[in-house]
Amino acid sequence: MPGETEAMPQLFHRPFCPLSRFIRLALGEYGVDVELVEERPWDRREAFLLMNPAATLPVYIEDDGLTVPGAGVVAEYLDETLGPSLCERRLLPEAAADRIEVRRLCSWFLDKFYAEVSGPLVGEKIDKRMMTFAQGGGPPDMMAIRAAKANIKYHLQYIGWLLRDRNWLAGDRLTYADVAAAAQLSSADYLGDVPWHEDEAAKQWYAKMKSRPSFRPILADAMAGMPPAPYYANLDF
Amino acid sequence: MPGETEAMPQLFHRPFCPLSRFIRLALGEYGVDVELVEERPWDRREAFLLMNPAATLPVYIEDDGLTVPGAGVVAEYLDETLGPSLCERRLLPEAAADRIEVRRLCSWFLDKFYAEVSGPLVGEKIDKRMMTFAQGGGPPDMMAIRAAKANIKYHLQYIGWLLRDRNWLAGDRLTYADVAAAAQLSSADYLGDVPWHEDEAAKQWYAKMKSRPSFRPILADAMAGMPPAPYYANLDF
Repeated sequence: MPGETEAMPQLFHRPFCPLSRFIRLALGEYGVDVELVEERPWDRREAFLLMNPAATLPVYIEDDGLTVPGAGVVAEYLDETLGPSLCERRLLPEAAADRIEVRRLCSWFLDKFYAEVSGPLVGEKIDKRMMTFAQGGGPPDMMAIRAAKANIKYHLQYIGWLLRDRNWLAGDRLTYADVAAAAQLSSADYLGDVPWHEDEAAKQWYAKMKSRPSFRPILADAMAGMPPAPYYANLDF
Repeated sequence: MPGETEAMPQLFHRPFCPLSRFIRLALGEYGVDVELVEERPWDRREAFLLMNPAATLPVYIEDDGLTVPGAGVVAEYLDETLGPSLCERRLLPEAAADRIEVRRLCSWFLDKFYAEVSGPLVGEKIDKRMMTFAQGGGPPDMMAIRAAKANIKYHLQYIGWLLRDRNWLAGDRLTYADVAAAAQLSSADYLGDVPWHEDEAAKQWYAKMKSRPSFRPILADAMAGMPPAPYYANLDF
């Protein structure tokens, strides 16, 4: 209600951080409203380091103050607390083999894709602009960007390969695997660095993800001085 | 029984891989006997890539053939299937806040410590000796080793800081956090690269970990041409 302050969960994040986006999308799928608080981890703000000594994003603060640091930890926490209420739409399905496959693919996208593609792209093209020299700022490392742009091709092919006999990345329904992959790709896509022509199946799947209500806030993100690629928010790209 | 083959779970691992050691120790704590199979991921053996396309270690194969790839995924799987049977000794305790803290520290040691310390040390000093030039082998990168040896100091201090008002790293009992940290340290300790004199509390805690039965096979590991640091298997070091 306007004028009243109701305790609402908070998410310390950065708008183009692919790991933050994973949790923003997941919260959207769970239907959890959250207050977004932008945090620049390289400032090493003391109150932030107390929440998460590893200084990684995102950090989720439950409305009772419980602090949940890091994308993977938040995802498990949300599944344990909210997952069962989603029943058939649970993002981490109940069968043991399904949980293994979803977690395997989450690690693929949150660890491997992030290390090889989205981390370097966002780090070099966006974060470095905001850092002082002492914080690691400066001109982008073109070698790192070139490597990331080469790596993204085989990740798109892998997505396409998974979709050859699956409707969604981990099987026959939407899971954390799709949310993790789409979050990672969305940051690279803002920068115009996803060669969608490389894989038609991956492109179709991403169009489906983009049209979900949970994606709307992500598509509305914009950065002064660095507009998105022209098709970024376009559902028919 | 000798002569008979009973289906037994398998663990594809490398003896000095800190992530493999995490799961070996965890299986020891759960009391699960496992057949250890040494895998050199850089050989990119096709059958191994089918088990785990990300080519990371370890990979756990359940006695019914179910494949569980990657340390984090295995840890969650073991907790879900075996955790409840341990009751009070569950390595991932049941209360939400405890699970968050254990998973936070697991990420600290399996991701951060591994990236900053144990991964570079084992990679440069051990793995590179076994790789061909094309696989990335060659002389160790002394800069990387020096950085890892500098980084380990603040990790030891962090362990000491945690132990100021805790008996174990995540609280008042043994959890995955201790197992993850001890596994990481054990690989560095084989190489003689843990400056135990830096933190007495961390040293006492590690002595306690080392004396657990689950640690025995780890302390018996040895590599031809590279003997362990003299105190490696010594419970009073």
